[in-house]
Amino acid sequence: MAERYGILEEEKVFKDPVHRYIHVRDELIWELIGTKEFQRLRRIRQLGTTYLTFHGAEHTRFNHSLGVYEIMRRMVDNLGQKMTWDPEERLVCLSAALLHDIGHGPFSHSFEKVFHTDHEEWTRAIILGDTDVHTVLKGIGNDFPQKVSDVIAKTYSNKLVVSLISSQIDADRMDYLQRDAFYTGVSYGHFDMERLLRVMRPSEDQAVFKHSGMHAVEDYIMSRYQMYWQVYFHPVTRSAEVILSKILHRAKDLYGQGYQFLDKPKHFYSLFSGKITLEDYLKLDESVILYYFQEWQEESDPILQELCRRFMERRLFKYVECDPSAQMKIWPELIQLFGKIGLDPNYYLVIDSSSDLPYDFYRPGEEEERLPINLLKPNGDLRELSRESDVVEAISGKKRTDHKLYFPKDLLEDQRTFADEKKRIMTLLTAQEG
Amino acid sequence: MAERYGILEEEKVFKDPVHRYIHVRDELIWELIGTKEFQRLRRIRQLGTTYLTFHGAEHTRFNHSLGVYEIMRRMVDNLGQKMTWDPEERLVCLSAALLHDIGHGPFSHSFEKVFHTDHEEWTRAIILGDTDVHTVLKGIGNDFPQKVSDVIAKTYSNKLVVSLISSQIDADRMDYLQRDAFYTGVSYGHFDMERLLRVMRPSEDQAVFKHSGMHAVEDYIMSRYQMYWQVYFHPVTRSAEVILSKILHRAKDLYGQGYQFLDKPKHFYSLFSGKITLEDYLKLDESVILYYFQEWQEESDPILQELCRRFMERRLFKYVECDPSAQMKIWPELIQLFGKIGLDPNYYLVIDSSSDLPYDFYRPGEEEERLPINLLKPNGDLRELSRESDVVEAISGKKRTDHKLYFPKDLLEDQRTFADEKKRIMTLLTAQEG
Amino acid sequence: MAERYGILEEEKVFKDPVHRYIHVRDELIWELIGTKEFQRLRRIRQLGTTYLTFHGAEHTRFNHSLGVYEIMRRMVDNLGQKMTWDPEERLVCLSAALLHDIGHGPFSHSFEKVFHTDHEEWTRAIILGDTDVHTVLKGIGNDFPQKVSDVIAKTYSNKLVVSLISSQIDADRMDYLQRDAFYTGVSYGHFDMERLLRVMRPSEDQAVFKHSGMHAVEDYIMSRYQMYWQVYFHPVTRSAEVILSKILHRAKDLYGQGYQFLDKPKHFYSLFSGKITLEDYLKLDESVILYYFQEWQEESDPILQELCRRFMERRLFKYVECDPSAQMKIWPELIQLFGKIGLDPNYYLVIDSSSDLPYDFYRPGEEEERLPINLLKPNGDLRELSRESDVVEAISGKKRTDHKLYFPKDLLEDQRTFADEKKRIMTLLTAQEG
Amino acid sequence: MAERYGILEEEKVFKDPVHRYIHVRDELIWELIGTKEFQRLRRIRQLGTTYLTFHGAEHTRFNHSLGVYEIMRRMVDNLGQKMTWDPEERLVCLSAALLHDIGHGPFSHSFEKVFHTDHEEWTRAIILGDTDVHTVLKGIGNDFPQKVSDVIAKTYSNKLVVSLISSQIDADRMDYLQRDAFYTGVSYGHFDMERLLRVMRPSEDQAVFKHSGMHAVEDYIMSRYQMYWQVYFHPVTRSAEVILSKILHRAKDLYGQGYQFLDKPKHFYSLFSGKITLEDYLKLDESVILYYFQEWQEESDPILQELCRRFMERRLFKYVECDPSAQMKIWPELIQLFGKIGLDPNYYLVIDSSSDLPYDFYRPGEEEERLPINLLKPNGDLRELSRESDVVEAISGKKRTDHKLYFPKDLLEDQRTFADEKKRIMTLLTAQEG
Repeated sequence: MAERYGILEEEKVFKDPVHRYIHVRDELIWELIGTKEFQRLRRIRQLGTTYLTFHGAEHTRFNHSLGVYEIMRRMVDNLGQKMTWDPEERLVCLSAALLHDIGHGPFSHSFEKVFHTDHEEWTRAIILGDTDVHTVLKGIGNDFPQKVSDVIAKTYSNKLVVSLISSQIDADRMDYLQRDAFYTGVSYGHFDMERLLRVMRPSEDQAVFKHSGMHAVEDYIMSRYQMYWQVYFHPVTRSAEVILSKILHRAKDLYGQGYQFLDKPKHFYSLFSGKITLEDYLKLDESVILYYFQEWQEESDPILQELCRRFMERRLFKYVECDPSAQMKIWPELIQLFGKIGLDPNYYLVIDSSSDLPYDFYRPGEEEERLPINLLKPNGDLRELSRESDVVEAISGKKRTDHKLYFPKDLLEDQRTFADEKKRIMTLLTAQEG
Repeated sequence: MAERYGILEEEKVFKDPVHRYIHVRDELIWELIGTKEFQRLRRIRQLGTTYLTFHGAEHTRFNHSLGVYEIMRRMVDNLGQKMTWDPEERLVCLSAALLHDIGHGPFSHSFEKVFHTDHEEWTRAIILGDTDVHTVLKGIGNDFPQKVSDVIAKTYSNKLVVSLISSQIDADRMDYLQRDAFYTGVSYGHFDMERLLRVMRPSEDQAVFKHSGMHAVEDYIMSRYQMYWQVYFHPVTRSAEVILSKILHRAKDLYGQGYQFLDKPKHFYSLFSGKITLEDYLKLDESVILYYFQEWQEESDPILQELCRRFMERRLFKYVECDPSAQMKIWPELIQLFGKIGLDPNYYLVIDSSSDLPYDFYRPGEEEERLPINLLKPNGDLRELSRESDVVEAISGKKRTDHKLYFPKDLLEDQRTFADEKKRIMTLLTAQEG
Repeated sequence: MAERYGILEEEKVFKDPVHRYIHVRDELIWELIGTKEFQRLRRIRQLGTTYLTFHGAEHTRFNHSLGVYEIMRRMVDNLGQKMTWDPEERLVCLSAALLHDIGHGPFSHSFEKVFHTDHEEWTRAIILGDTDVHTVLKGIGNDFPQKVSDVIAKTYSNKLVVSLISSQIDADRMDYLQRDAFYTGVSYGHFDMERLLRVMRPSEDQAVFKHSGMHAVEDYIMSRYQMYWQVYFHPVTRSAEVILSKILHRAKDLYGQGYQFLDKPKHFYSLFSGKITLEDYLKLDESVILYYFQEWQEESDPILQELCRRFMERRLFKYVECDPSAQMKIWPELIQLFGKIGLDPNYYLVIDSSSDLPYDFYRPGEEEERLPINLLKPNGDLRELSRESDVVEAISGKKRTDHKLYFPKDLLEDQRTFADEKKRIMTLLTAQEG
Repeated sequence: MAERYGILEEEKVFKDPVHRYIHVRDELIWELIGTKEFQRLRRIRQLGTTYLTFHGAEHTRFNHSLGVYEIMRRMVDNLGQKMTWDPEERLVCLSAALLHDIGHGPFSHSFEKVFHTDHEEWTRAIILGDTDVHTVLKGIGNDFPQKVSDVIAKTYSNKLVVSLISSQIDADRMDYLQRDAFYTGVSYGHFDMERLLRVMRPSEDQAVFKHSGMHAVEDYIMSRYQMYWQVYFHPVTRSAEVILSKILHRAKDLYGQGYQFLDKPKHFYSLFSGKITLEDYLKLDESVILYYFQEWQEESDPILQELCRRFMERRLFKYVECDPSAQMKIWPELIQLFGKIGLDPNYYLVIDSSSDLPYDFYRPGEEEERLPINLLKPNGDLRELSRESDVVEAISGKKRTDHKLYFPKDLLEDQRTFADEKKRIMTLLTAQEG
């Protein structure tokens, strides 16, 4: 290990409302936090449009990234009582935890869908590319950036390290469940992290948990389950995401059509053309996006203008529950009716689906082979969680999917003409609901 | 009272991490929250640049405004057990609480200093001008907006109502102390609000507190005192404010000199020229400002460019304690030295002062005549707080002022030439400290 | 309704660490709290011997009873927004909530098992008998005590009222889950009570919950489930209960055999003889029991003496998991071995079983017909909880039973002789464990 | 250091509602917790009669003692980063923290006043006497018990160690302020312990605090101040103490007069005669005392009987504020009047005074020479706290005293005769109040 970064003379602490304090002793970590790429995370919200549903959820990925680092620091210390860490391996863990989300862009969910970007690829690009982060990481050794990148890509040789940052119970999830619960103010999301960390044990290819801590693991899985359906998939948040995606789609389409914007959206050019460079990507943040959305409220294109006003003023789409098979039958008629009354169905009639697999064990050959959570018996045997816990067994491997159909109810109601069409539309839509 | 807005069929609730739930029953309040002017507060942080010191403090004025409304709602209910509210007066209270900060712009502190704007004037302009807020308020009666505006201006006839929203212990302060403590994660800022609300009693010209609740009031005053010095005046936050102000100054100066910006800062034109309209003002938010700061990192003017990079990358100025009288003597030499090594002292050598008067009683004839906090004895007598409480007496009327001198230590250290000048500068600066 | 008790001039409040404040406005409630029978609950712990496992759990039934009253008060207020309460019915609710546990004696669980007492019968006896509680209740009307007693007995005509105090989701459970979690310090036991209360709706024979609040109900059920297995059935607590029961057994047996106690256990006479009067019962509290346990440490009977010292000094029995069917085979040999080494198996070899049914729906004809939790759909339909919730469905109706075998491992280890017998005992015991 | 006690194979943890977990790694500590003298603390409440005012405050000295140990463990670890601990010295710290209150008896405050016992003397007697605690301590070395005892007596040579357990800011106070706030439910008592521990530095004769942590120290001092006046000196608690003392006085007097008790109060004999042995003392706990109080409700002596019923049923004395100098004048008449209406003024007319010195610096030659709290400047200088902090300066050295006169208002009101005398008594009493 190179000598460039050692231990800080005086430990640095950040006051954190979730973990009370974030402790930094390693110069490497201190330097990484100070890079402009990491500071950029202050301008990207952790939960995208969720703040439009839960007004408290205005926290950024900067906030969360420090939290993941802090949990990793504690995990590494705790595991260190049962194993010996190679000093560089320890820094790999801490760096990967701190940087695991550094490739996120503004409103990632929608951007990835519309522009086919992938935040994990960008994370690796930032770690390996011509950035301050890369320069700092190289201070430890020339191959150090690659190691950190491999952990993110889950290709790193030490699978225990990979499991600490991305598995069904890792530092990332442990932080976001608690943090998002804290900022939204919901009463879910609490579990006994201190106990989880204490019953964690190193094993060959992942961290496992002492069997006596099973109930703490159960509680964590249930928290996760509740947070997904109560917060992450909240239909109002999804409505905002739908509008956001449609704005991006519209702008991209207009650009493709050679539309002349009042104010040139230069930050979007490379996105629109699908050839975005790292330098361009790093300029994107939520301030920039919101700047354009504000500007576009004045555009002459009625759809772009209308959707941007909706977003800025939080006039969201309403929704009805939707059964995809039943919807097949009414879809053509709905599209025709929307067209007739002047609402482009490509932008104003949107099906959005959410689905979650709260916990799963390993099913070889299946699409996503998930590493199970294993419990360690006093005699050294490992037992897969769902075989020991009734509650986890109940939700294990059960993918729950929820479909909703979003549309601008206000526009329908405000319209003075086409009374019959509107009535028919409402009949079709509400017939969808069980 | 007009019939336009009544009671919502079903109460609306907002999940709030500080007050658990915000309850809305009045259609008027629901409509006000939905206006675009109120939604704009989602893009203006409550604590300006404080998030650069306490990373948790990313909450916005939207968040706080709902909180002030909720406290006012409880105050009005509680006082209603001891008095009878005129239904319209009640709505005046709730509306004024919700809207009291609606005139805030981005990074208000710095903007007000540089551009001589006044958020309270803008609040009244929004309430009385051509806005959605105004339209909604008029739904109660033509003179209703004026009433709400008068409460904000403290000229409203019912002084009890004014005291609930702006006095030394009001709904505004009660919310921000708790909320800012929650988001920063500091352990100050807690007091027993439930008890304060319960011992509050209506009196002729202000709310007073039952004497038996004195310790809860004391605790509130001490929380306020700690929050000021630990959070609001934190020197790192002030350093960020200093840089922010200097960026605005520089941009304004350059504009005055006819400098050609790469990207025309049209949102700033009317600010620069001092003739800003309500419409222009409402377009300003922190996304817009941060958009320009990002753009200006590429400007050719070295000072503007350098300061913007500092701000975006959080490379703040360092500081030394400073004694204004001692500093008089060394000032000319310092300025000369800064000039010599190529750092414009107008931008790179800044004295910033904070001062606070934690509690004060009425001193007729003095600059700011503050309404004292009065305690209500069982026999009906009123006693001014500081006469009853040793602790409050100790800090009462004592203005504490703190001066700091900010400068870019990193630039001094990085410079390879002017060794003697730099050494002399550091000697002069550190001699300032006690 | 009689005029004897009205509304207090000034509301009384109790500071409560769980609900922040307990509010009392009804003179009736204030008077009931002041009775000596209610004050007696201060000398009976809420969780029996649990404080020997979780040292924080030293709270009493007084503490809990106030909490149940407070939740009922809020329930009654909330439901009152959707229905009209008869003023006396309201007082029935509040009184039954406050008094529902007043018949509890010291360490109820063990006492009921050994002496065949029934705390619910005693509750009704206190309400209907010659007590201060009865006198106060009669202040409302001559038939008022009977009404309150009927609610406790679940025979009251208004089934909605009964369901608020004893159903699968009632004021009693809501308080104890939160309170016991608070005092033990475990991280389970939290759920969003405020939301539960807000989505509660009156229905013919029970309170139901708006369907939109289903996740809050799920969370409550899961909290209950975790609290049962993590706290209430904790094996260390059960070990203490086992010893406590055996002390009582031994004292009763000795009394039956005409044993001469050093200090006459007069408080136990009527218990031993099975003819306990209300007056005698009310003299029993945990101070009295602990007084005797301390005294009995000096008794000449070696078993009574030894068990009491164990209890007072917290030297508990150890346990092994136990499979009742397998245990049948080894039981005779174990008993013989225990006898041989001088440990009376009636006192030193104890199987203890716990079982819980976390949630159940109505199964007509079965032993215990439990009222299901019903969710109210927007269209007015009711749906039974487990049909809507995967998680609840998973644990619904599944009785989980856990058997453990308790024995004094320290005595076995300390003994110097009978090496072979001891070895064989340990072999038999550990063979029990899976 | 002897080898008898080492490090536990697996760390033991206690779930604690205040510190989340109490961690034990040293066998010595584990053994001490298991002694019968330490387990006895489970039967002695931390706050005496405070539970009659704040019903949540039912926690025991066992609870608190574990907490003080845990804080000490963290202090020792933290200071260990700046100094090197001798391994035995470390154990002296931990043991003294755990055992510092082991000499407390039931309702210590009243017992010490009436029977002139001293809990600190008993603590040393338990540590040095023929006890399990002593035996365990000797496992470290023959002189180890004496060392621990010296720390309690503040005569230990290493003054830094003494200051950690008894100074104006020590492990004992840090625990009880937080713990008592937690259990009573009051909103005072919070301060940032984590920060205090982090800014603590070893110094020659005491721990000092980095100057940058001054506000955390201020906050701690203010918490202490509020807790004293809001909780510890609460007039209702004092009323219960007054009755308790008078019961003990009466029983002692009756014993001196040869009164025949129905049930021989053998546990009190040695207390009454002033010759209590360690063995007798260790038998006293609050169960025993409450047992007698219950029995004495049936005694023939009307005063003993009446006072015991009051205590058990919580019918406390009322109080008026009292000015000792004014009271001198009316005292003879009051005593005469009380006598006339049949209330023995020795038991039914009681002046009780509380006084507190929230913080003090060293005043040589004065009665109680208190070690000041010192702040450590970056340059190594020490500054006494009150010279740096306005708030602390305000309350520093200011002894606040509060006198109240307690009497049984109910007895006065219930009496049918002596109307004039009663009227005169009430006039005299209320004239006392300002």
